[in-house]
Amino acid sequence: MKARVHVMLKNGVLDPQGEAVRHALGAMGFDKVEGVRQGKVIDLTLAEGSSEADVTDMCEKLLANTVIESYSIEML
Amino acid sequence: MKARVHVMLKNGVLDPQGEAVRHALGAMGFDKVEGVRQGKVIDLTLAEGSSEADVTDMCEKLLANTVIESYSIEML
Repeated sequence: MKARVHVMLKNGVLDPQGEAVRHALGAMGFDKVEGVRQGKVIDLTLAEGSSEADVTDMCEKLLANTVIESYSIEML
Repeated sequence: MKARVHVMLKNGVLDPQGEAVRHALGAMGFDKVEGVRQGKVIDLTLAEGSSEADVTDMCEKLLANTVIESYSIEML
């Protein structure tokens, strides 16, 4: 089974990487871009019998820094 | 309007970051994790009138290195 985890900086946390992308897109003529936020996506391949609770545990303990990042889990 | 772009290393391209995460999860006792691939997620806020073709263009020109990365676009 597979799970996909998205880890994004929380709203209000400065995202210099996203800001750099927005700036670069603007400089390349993509003037319709109003904002960019960049995050991580982590695709996990799990043994049968794994649950979403296991993945939540991984996020809390390793995958996300919950002080500044939020995460969402999709079981596929 | 919003668009979400996923940029992942192509299959067969070594993913040391994902490998490091898999190793760390294993060391923490998450022994049901068989594989990890890590990629980027880019959330774009676009002015009205933007199309998926614009976002494809951004991916080809800036957001993804199409030699080693594949991308997928979701219009939200």
